[in-house]
Amino acid sequence: MEDRDPQSSAAHPATRIIERLAWLEGSFVQGEREIPEEMPVALSYNRVSHAVMMASPLDLEDFALGFSLSEEIVRSPDEIEELELFTVPGAEGEPPRGVELRLWIGEERMRGLDRRRRHIAGPTGCGLCGLESLDAALRPLRPVPEGRRYTASQVQEAVASLRPAQALNRRTHAVHAAGFWTEADGLVAVREDVGRHNALDKLHGALAARRTDLAQGILVMTSRISVELVQKAAIMGAPMLAAVSAPTALALRMAEQAGITLIAVARDDGFELCSGRHRVVA
Amino acid sequence: MEDRDPQSSAAHPATRIIERLAWLEGSFVQGEREIPEEMPVALSYNRVSHAVMMASPLDLEDFALGFSLSEEIVRSPDEIEELELFTVPGAEGEPPRGVELRLWIGEERMRGLDRRRRHIAGPTGCGLCGLESLDAALRPLRPVPEGRRYTASQVQEAVASLRPAQALNRRTHAVHAAGFWTEADGLVAVREDVGRHNALDKLHGALAARRTDLAQGILVMTSRISVELVQKAAIMGAPMLAAVSAPTALALRMAEQAGITLIAVARDDGFELCSGRHRVVA
Repeated sequence: MEDRDPQSSAAHPATRIIERLAWLEGSFVQGEREIPEEMPVALSYNRVSHAVMMASPLDLEDFALGFSLSEEIVRSPDEIEELELFTVPGAEGEPPRGVELRLWIGEERMRGLDRRRRHIAGPTGCGLCGLESLDAALRPLRPVPEGRRYTASQVQEAVASLRPAQALNRRTHAVHAAGFWTEADGLVAVREDVGRHNALDKLHGALAARRTDLAQGILVMTSRISVELVQKAAIMGAPMLAAVSAPTALALRMAEQAGITLIAVARDDGFELCSGRHRVVA
Repeated sequence: MEDRDPQSSAAHPATRIIERLAWLEGSFVQGEREIPEEMPVALSYNRVSHAVMMASPLDLEDFALGFSLSEEIVRSPDEIEELELFTVPGAEGEPPRGVELRLWIGEERMRGLDRRRRHIAGPTGCGLCGLESLDAALRPLRPVPEGRRYTASQVQEAVASLRPAQALNRRTHAVHAAGFWTEADGLVAVREDVGRHNALDKLHGALAARRTDLAQGILVMTSRISVELVQKAAIMGAPMLAAVSAPTALALRMAEQAGITLIAVARDDGFELCSGRHRVVA
């Protein structure tokens, strides 16, 4: 896997050490804890403000690309003509107020985004990530590529590869991770964030920048499988999604629709196949 | 505590039983798992669509009220003149496509909402929950009431009271819960959802409907403490927030600003006081 220190690639310190009073076995003990930073991250396209997300201030270039792809604002990394990361300073002695990710995209894509925005700004309100209606929130997913088959042992290897790579979580025990594992190279990338959807968007950006073929491996995540993660996996073209907890019923229906293999409750001693069973053999 | 069966108060079945193939100790075993349902829930005010959230189809009346209060669309339960829950049916044999929560509010509140919407629909996009800028995302919080003080044992009792009350989680092991504990009555309410912010909004609605004074107890949650939970707690006027995992650094700064006592990593054997320490004594 790439050799990365999560601190070094951060726009800002990704953690903070705080004093806390621990109550343990009947008495208070003064001590320290390392906690993850969280920051408002604003995205704009061609100087038009689009969204503000709360995120870990880490791998934000990957986030800008992955978010743009997941939201289908652009179709490929080339369509982002420029990306500027701008920190909004806080008051003296205070952390930054946030980060602006300023993206520039071509005219055609911007027109598409404007159409979506006007549609949203009509008689309706904000909506889920800019989608206005129930049907838009559950728009049909494109089927994922068939990809490869794996043995159960390979699935376990993929799942087990994630934990040692969670550098930020090792220090804070409070952030999610998304990784991508291939038979040839093991875990090829991992991204962490206080939000699991952000972690997956960051991974999406990191893999897209390297033109990684998502059909050739397994997405692994530390979280529950909600519908948004399945939607993102489908847009990534990822046929396999493994997570340490269970899917929601809607996430499972969407995975079945897209032909995604959902591997749930993936732990050291086993896992559960919830959909797309043909891709995993004993 | 109120006597509730999560299934019975649901607009739709809150869970689904699926067939899954478990890989355990080197072989596949066919079996079943109960997983939580998840559904797009659209909120409209005076017939104007406002937002679509993915949520557990459970306690949606509480959600409608709690969301409206948390987003400061209304200031009190009385300001919701009418609430209608409308299920959008799915295709034959399919689950519903979603739920619409149709709220009616007074003219003055609707004008306030329209102003916010026009502000959003100007040169800017969707934003975090309808807030357009970094500063809006981190608008200053009102200080919470001073409330009461508790012993460490009472904090542990409050935290321990949550798990036995998580009826939906007992069946699915995959949903969050938010509860409210008081010295006089123990755990007085709990609400569950696939999303922790929804769980807290539902609890907010349930407690507001009963005019519960949040200064007289402890909010307990199953999740990490992100900034949105602290913002919601502050709007609820809750001086004490305890959770099983750690806060983010930003959540801690916001808690300090609002004067909230943050109790983190609350487990069977202890907890950690991160802010507002004066409210907990040995």
